[in-house]
Amino acid sequence: MAEFRMEHDFLGDKEVPIDAYYGVQTLRAIENFPITGYRIHPALIKCMAIVKKAAALANAKIGELEKDKAEAIAKAADDVIAGKFNDWFLVDPIQGGAGTSINMNTNEVIANRALEIIGESKGNYKVISPNSHVNMAQSTNDSFPTAAHLTIAMLLDELIAVMKEMQDMMLKKAKEFDGMIKMGRTHLQDAVPIRLGQEFKAHAAVVGRDIKRLTNAREHMLTVNMGATAVGTGLNAEPEYIKEVVKQLGEISGLPVKGAEDLVDGTQNCDSYLEVSALLKVCMTSMSKICNDLRLMASGPRCGLLELNLPPRQPGSSIMPGKVNPVIAEVINQIAFQVIGNDVTVTMGVEAGQFELNVMEPIFVFNVIQSLTIMANGFRVFTKYLLKDLTANPERMKAYVENSVGIVTAINPHVGYETAAQLAREAYVSGKPIRELILRDKVLTEEEINIILDPVGMTTPGISGAELKHKK
Amino acid sequence: MAEFRMEHDFLGDKEVPIDAYYGVQTLRAIENFPITGYRIHPALIKCMAIVKKAAALANAKIGELEKDKAEAIAKAADDVIAGKFNDWFLVDPIQGGAGTSINMNTNEVIANRALEIIGESKGNYKVISPNSHVNMAQSTNDSFPTAAHLTIAMLLDELIAVMKEMQDMMLKKAKEFDGMIKMGRTHLQDAVPIRLGQEFKAHAAVVGRDIKRLTNAREHMLTVNMGATAVGTGLNAEPEYIKEVVKQLGEISGLPVKGAEDLVDGTQNCDSYLEVSALLKVCMTSMSKICNDLRLMASGPRCGLLELNLPPRQPGSSIMPGKVNPVIAEVINQIAFQVIGNDVTVTMGVEAGQFELNVMEPIFVFNVIQSLTIMANGFRVFTKYLLKDLTANPERMKAYVENSVGIVTAINPHVGYETAAQLAREAYVSGKPIRELILRDKVLTEEEINIILDPVGMTTPGISGAELKHKK
Amino acid sequence: MAEFRMEHDFLGDKEVPIDAYYGVQTLRAIENFPITGYRIHPALIKCMAIVKKAAALANAKIGELEKDKAEAIAKAADDVIAGKFNDWFLVDPIQGGAGTSINMNTNEVIANRALEIIGESKGNYKVISPNSHVNMAQSTNDSFPTAAHLTIAMLLDELIAVMKEMQDMMLKKAKEFDGMIKMGRTHLQDAVPIRLGQEFKAHAAVVGRDIKRLTNAREHMLTVNMGATAVGTGLNAEPEYIKEVVKQLGEISGLPVKGAEDLVDGTQNCDSYLEVSALLKVCMTSMSKICNDLRLMASGPRCGLLELNLPPRQPGSSIMPGKVNPVIAEVINQIAFQVIGNDVTVTMGVEAGQFELNVMEPIFVFNVIQSLTIMANGFRVFTKYLLKDLTANPERMKAYVENSVGIVTAINPHVGYETAAQLAREAYVSGKPIRELILRDKVLTEEEINIILDPVGMTTPGISGAELKHKK
Amino acid sequence: MAEFRMEHDFLGDKEVPIDAYYGVQTLRAIENFPITGYRIHPALIKCMAIVKKAAALANAKIGELEKDKAEAIAKAADDVIAGKFNDWFLVDPIQGGAGTSINMNTNEVIANRALEIIGESKGNYKVISPNSHVNMAQSTNDSFPTAAHLTIAMLLDELIAVMKEMQDMMLKKAKEFDGMIKMGRTHLQDAVPIRLGQEFKAHAAVVGRDIKRLTNAREHMLTVNMGATAVGTGLNAEPEYIKEVVKQLGEISGLPVKGAEDLVDGTQNCDSYLEVSALLKVCMTSMSKICNDLRLMASGPRCGLLELNLPPRQPGSSIMPGKVNPVIAEVINQIAFQVIGNDVTVTMGVEAGQFELNVMEPIFVFNVIQSLTIMANGFRVFTKYLLKDLTANPERMKAYVENSVGIVTAINPHVGYETAAQLAREAYVSGKPIRELILRDKVLTEEEINIILDPVGMTTPGISGAELKHKK
Repeated sequence: MAEFRMEHDFLGDKEVPIDAYYGVQTLRAIENFPITGYRIHPALIKCMAIVKKAAALANAKIGELEKDKAEAIAKAADDVIAGKFNDWFLVDPIQGGAGTSINMNTNEVIANRALEIIGESKGNYKVISPNSHVNMAQSTNDSFPTAAHLTIAMLLDELIAVMKEMQDMMLKKAKEFDGMIKMGRTHLQDAVPIRLGQEFKAHAAVVGRDIKRLTNAREHMLTVNMGATAVGTGLNAEPEYIKEVVKQLGEISGLPVKGAEDLVDGTQNCDSYLEVSALLKVCMTSMSKICNDLRLMASGPRCGLLELNLPPRQPGSSIMPGKVNPVIAEVINQIAFQVIGNDVTVTMGVEAGQFELNVMEPIFVFNVIQSLTIMANGFRVFTKYLLKDLTANPERMKAYVENSVGIVTAINPHVGYETAAQLAREAYVSGKPIRELILRDKVLTEEEINIILDPVGMTTPGISGAELKHKK
Repeated sequence: MAEFRMEHDFLGDKEVPIDAYYGVQTLRAIENFPITGYRIHPALIKCMAIVKKAAALANAKIGELEKDKAEAIAKAADDVIAGKFNDWFLVDPIQGGAGTSINMNTNEVIANRALEIIGESKGNYKVISPNSHVNMAQSTNDSFPTAAHLTIAMLLDELIAVMKEMQDMMLKKAKEFDGMIKMGRTHLQDAVPIRLGQEFKAHAAVVGRDIKRLTNAREHMLTVNMGATAVGTGLNAEPEYIKEVVKQLGEISGLPVKGAEDLVDGTQNCDSYLEVSALLKVCMTSMSKICNDLRLMASGPRCGLLELNLPPRQPGSSIMPGKVNPVIAEVINQIAFQVIGNDVTVTMGVEAGQFELNVMEPIFVFNVIQSLTIMANGFRVFTKYLLKDLTANPERMKAYVENSVGIVTAINPHVGYETAAQLAREAYVSGKPIRELILRDKVLTEEEINIILDPVGMTTPGISGAELKHKK
Repeated sequence: MAEFRMEHDFLGDKEVPIDAYYGVQTLRAIENFPITGYRIHPALIKCMAIVKKAAALANAKIGELEKDKAEAIAKAADDVIAGKFNDWFLVDPIQGGAGTSINMNTNEVIANRALEIIGESKGNYKVISPNSHVNMAQSTNDSFPTAAHLTIAMLLDELIAVMKEMQDMMLKKAKEFDGMIKMGRTHLQDAVPIRLGQEFKAHAAVVGRDIKRLTNAREHMLTVNMGATAVGTGLNAEPEYIKEVVKQLGEISGLPVKGAEDLVDGTQNCDSYLEVSALLKVCMTSMSKICNDLRLMASGPRCGLLELNLPPRQPGSSIMPGKVNPVIAEVINQIAFQVIGNDVTVTMGVEAGQFELNVMEPIFVFNVIQSLTIMANGFRVFTKYLLKDLTANPERMKAYVENSVGIVTAINPHVGYETAAQLAREAYVSGKPIRELILRDKVLTEEEINIILDPVGMTTPGISGAELKHKK
Repeated sequence: MAEFRMEHDFLGDKEVPIDAYYGVQTLRAIENFPITGYRIHPALIKCMAIVKKAAALANAKIGELEKDKAEAIAKAADDVIAGKFNDWFLVDPIQGGAGTSINMNTNEVIANRALEIIGESKGNYKVISPNSHVNMAQSTNDSFPTAAHLTIAMLLDELIAVMKEMQDMMLKKAKEFDGMIKMGRTHLQDAVPIRLGQEFKAHAAVVGRDIKRLTNAREHMLTVNMGATAVGTGLNAEPEYIKEVVKQLGEISGLPVKGAEDLVDGTQNCDSYLEVSALLKVCMTSMSKICNDLRLMASGPRCGLLELNLPPRQPGSSIMPGKVNPVIAEVINQIAFQVIGNDVTVTMGVEAGQFELNVMEPIFVFNVIQSLTIMANGFRVFTKYLLKDLTANPERMKAYVENSVGIVTAINPHVGYETAAQLAREAYVSGKPIRELILRDKVLTEEEINIILDPVGMTTPGISGAELKHKK
């Protein structure tokens, strides 16, 4: 009883497990590239299948592919799109050959599944061939980048949706924390007061800019080079086919896909992947800063700032009972570092394009997809497990402000620079609160101080407590 | 005869050279930061002075600064804007303190120049003070970032103009080279033909996208945080002043400057610098790829491809007479590597912001300015010394095509797959040209071959020489 | 029938699948960190278990842990070391909390397996507790870094062995190619001749230096901070235990493990991870250069250099039959880009350490391990599938040399500069070979030319064909 | 009266200012590369001249160069070595051409100065020629890398000396701060106590490792490829000359210079530059972490930790009198970011080598030299202006410890886990100090507490206050 079927390509014969949906070229790729041990991202498998279905339908439409074959291929592609055949995608995401291996893995799985659908045995490529039929009018050089673009566009959609939820939560917290005054810090040194809500509003503003940037960059991902064939000249690809396949891609994916105006450009230049990667990096750089601030503000409980309370998510120490660490913020930092490093990998990959093609696509597609995935995953837990139940310690923050020397800046216009400076100096030397000294010297009344130190007044443009000044 | 005047700040006294336009705080900064030995970029000095002039005029307008002092400060600022006082800006571009040193260097030079203008002696800060008057209603935390934003916007304008000239030249070459067929290469392996003009059109397309990206990013640079004072709350800065100073900035700089909607965000978040840096990186990554291609195509003269002739710019070897190297392309590669490295520096700097301020601004402002400068400088020589007089060797390129096995792909639809494959195999083994074999076997006539191998037909979508096919 | 058992920690209760070897804290970690979807590297799981076994034995030795419990833990650890429980390590490699989650996952799996071994039911932590027994006298802060160090040391061993094989193969090829002269190229421009073997010897030399560098860096990985407990002060860890546990680590792992001299330093400073990562980067940068050269030399077959023939590994194109791409070299380039990007991630992670600990360890341990793994995997295929069967085209290389103008440099001392320069000029203009011109003018005889152009003579210091000169 | 002299090379004639020490090729380079506007580093100019002197003496020794010419060249080189001609080195550090321009700038300045010394007029290259005499038996491809290696070795010497001073100061502080207990922090959360001196000792340990790493890497810089000529084969360079020139290099530079064993390897492989850069990066990553800690510990004065007092170096704010910022620590952070970015630039440059040469040397030599320079400069001010007069606030640090819940960990072995946990819980909820609760409940006496909380006992391995335990 045969456990293998024999397949061959122009390099020779190879035994393929008899039930395998993949074929000889997938086998060669597995042998050649046992690099990471990771699997191809499901979204990329899905989009590879979308490309194959679109091509089959377009080829059928222009009369190059028999209807029944096209139908079988489309059905097989649907199964792959549905995620049912992910286990048969065995090539490594890091692979030489500009994506030929993932393309051939797809061609082979779809061909064999299509054969199965029409009642043929696997490997009977004379009926439906991975190359001649599933890959008809395509090259790895247009089908893989097209699938990669769609994958990234889809993952960007998902990421942007997650970012909007995160931004909403930040704005909700900004509102919740709006009345809470705290010490503003520059250089980690006490500066002048600010409201906690203002900080969260600023965080939301950055995320808002990042959403815009990524939304713009997504546009470039919706432009695909289908029809380019080998080098972008579209040799042997009928203009009609090119038009039709792009239309099909749009319909199947549900995305507003456009064909590249210049297919040569679209095939050899990979700047748009790098644009996405670079802007993901921009986003994570800010997110890392935000998480650093959160961790600093939650530092303590006794020997730190303790302005914020991060929701406890897991025990933080096996040796010190009760210790809770800011693990969710930390994981965002780590995702940031990964995304920043990935961007360097993407940069080098894109720089390494030569002539009509960038053969390093697998490495940078892998990295962009990874960045998108870990960001979306990270932001979800960040929103749900950190932001949502985040609380603040307004009394402590207020005490810092009142104990600070920095509020002298606000009192300055009311008592004159000289008096203010003198009080500041005494406060510094003695360690006494400014408020106490002001009251002691009857420079201002308790009521006046409260008006001047009004959270909103002190944290918006203009002189805090200006009404007092005018009263006088 | 005194050679020094005594100045002091709250850390004590310090002797300043009697004729110096700078003062005690510049001296401290020189002592503290003898880091790179470089000077502050002239454009940044200019923009610092623009900020000071705008603030003086705005403060005068709202009645906080006496008219005559404001006038003297404005005049002094004009002198700095004109570049006359660049020699007195002695602080290092890499400096601790979030730009305080460059801000104080500016305040001191303008104060002393203003004193000189009104006939006072330098150092007489009771009349015009670097802090109280030149820096009135400002903080380093709003004046330095504002100046940095304007500097980058101006340098971006300059860069974009240079890029447009470069793109025009690429398009001119694309036209000039449009009829020249050459071998398209993927994986550095012979693929199918392409026209040299198509490659240059693709180069121009990338540059076009980069121009768009940078034009968008420039928008963010035109938004400034003037009025933020220390932490973005605008404490002690009158709303009227904030409005006026932004208006003045626009008028003096000639740029469509806008005030940040959220001054807290505008003060603590530096994502827009990173956006610019990241997009400069995107641009240089493509430029490096283009230069790699140019260098490969100009390789030889005897042992390389020799498809292109780069204009000789300087002797390339002291040991091999007559050797000329692709030095202009090489310098663009190097600029690319610098800009890519700088982007990592900018990333780390932006990530290191804490709470209300990013104190690492000097390092990333320095790096963004450097990237902008070397790119504009590099693109100028690239356009003028490489692109402009670039020529190609069409005969050689054509010979490659005709000698290649790859053209079988075009002949395929005309002679059938079997025949084509057989000829290809023989060509491979014997080393003979495909054309010769076709003629020998009378598969096609010379005339038919010429039609099929028509440069435009073979390099545009569809079957090359389709008219022949239909004829039959 | 219960499908869950209830476990609790100080954050509350949680249902654990009744058969699970992990426990409540693993569950929390799974919930908190659904980031990459990757699994913990088997070597790291193994080394975590080595640490646990060593600690159990050391604690038993000093009398803190009952013998039978220690024995059960040691046996359970052995099972994990053997890889039998890898499926139960479900926490994500990117995780907040400085490795607490992987540490607790290990503690829980070993505790439950130990309970099983002694006939207790899972979750019966009163008998053997993940915290009190498996983690006894440890903290995440010493056990995880210790395991990470050992993992990296082991993977370095493996990598270095692979590198030695690769170097040997390069040296073998250097010998094989030693007699083959080819054109040396600088700036991609023809320079003077070199032997192909010399190039491969140079490649082997770089690999040799990299092996030395990594061998040195490995030393630092053999130094561990076991006994540091929470912050390196070793609070509550008996000096005797510290000594014993290090000894056990050495015996179990078979590596010459040493305890850190300064445990505080050993706990908070992660420079040695970065050293490894940076040196891996150094290695891959050279490997990428080598692969770039190989791909260039194998370019063609008709429109490139075709000096080398890379063994065909898989069909390179679905559209162009017979095309073979340098996929193995390409995958090494891609691995290089990944390792270079990973190094930036490691850098940022290491930079982010604060006070007594670097909580970003998971991200950089993950990246270092990934770099080590993909390098070893890549070098294996590179040696086996590219280097081993690599062949050259000596006739073609020789033709390049003889056709070049560059050989004038060698003829120069024999015919005088003037004559040489004149011939060079004519060769340039006419396109004729130098050799032909020399013979035509009877400047040298065929025999003399052959002596001068002797492969070894022309490619070693001194004047090529010096014996001819002296004869005259 | 002529203001120019006419010079020419094989690209044509060019007017050179009559008094200029440089010549036509420098002029071309100035025109081609107006990139950064920076000057060549003085140490590199010096080492270029050392190379020229060594070559002249070696050529004279083997009889290829007339004694009097060699002498004149050597004297001229001495003047350049002394720094007297730096103003005539006008080529940009970022330049195409693998250093040809800096090499020719050196050749021209030395030739003209030598002509001047022997009473000839500048430009009279028939007597002493930049190419034939000053550059005799050299190529840019060996002379520039050799000079670059020596420069880096010299700057490493300087840097290492500065690092040793810094390390000494850290050790001095470690001793000074040894008795001061403070709260150890992990995840920015209170952990268990540590001594401030232990932290500084750990800092010194890292610096010590970095010194070792850089000392090792320096070895590779002392190996030079002089004699390689164009591609490392040493074509036309006499073996005797090669031996002699290396000997001369050693004598003139005072460094233990060695010739590369494999000149081909030494010419095309630039891994050792990257090794230096990567290890500088490793060093700065740790230094940035240290400075982050210092800035955190000096945060305040009222709203931060205020454990350390950094010496005030300059006023920190124009708007808040008395504010002092940690500017020296900040500048080290910024230098770190620059060095880390530079390392990426160096990586890309080294990766871009092709065949027999790396033409990107100028960019990475520039970056390595810059990193070395700014590190040495930065460490000098760091040692002198920050470390030297750094003071701590032991009372505050101690108060943190005693107020913390974390000390329960130390008390645990003395009072039992149950009691300790109960006290911890109450302390948490009530905000009361643990010490107070212990005394209230008479769990321990004041004296006993003091013994347990002994700074050294609590911060060294073993149970703190073990003697009490045994007493009982």
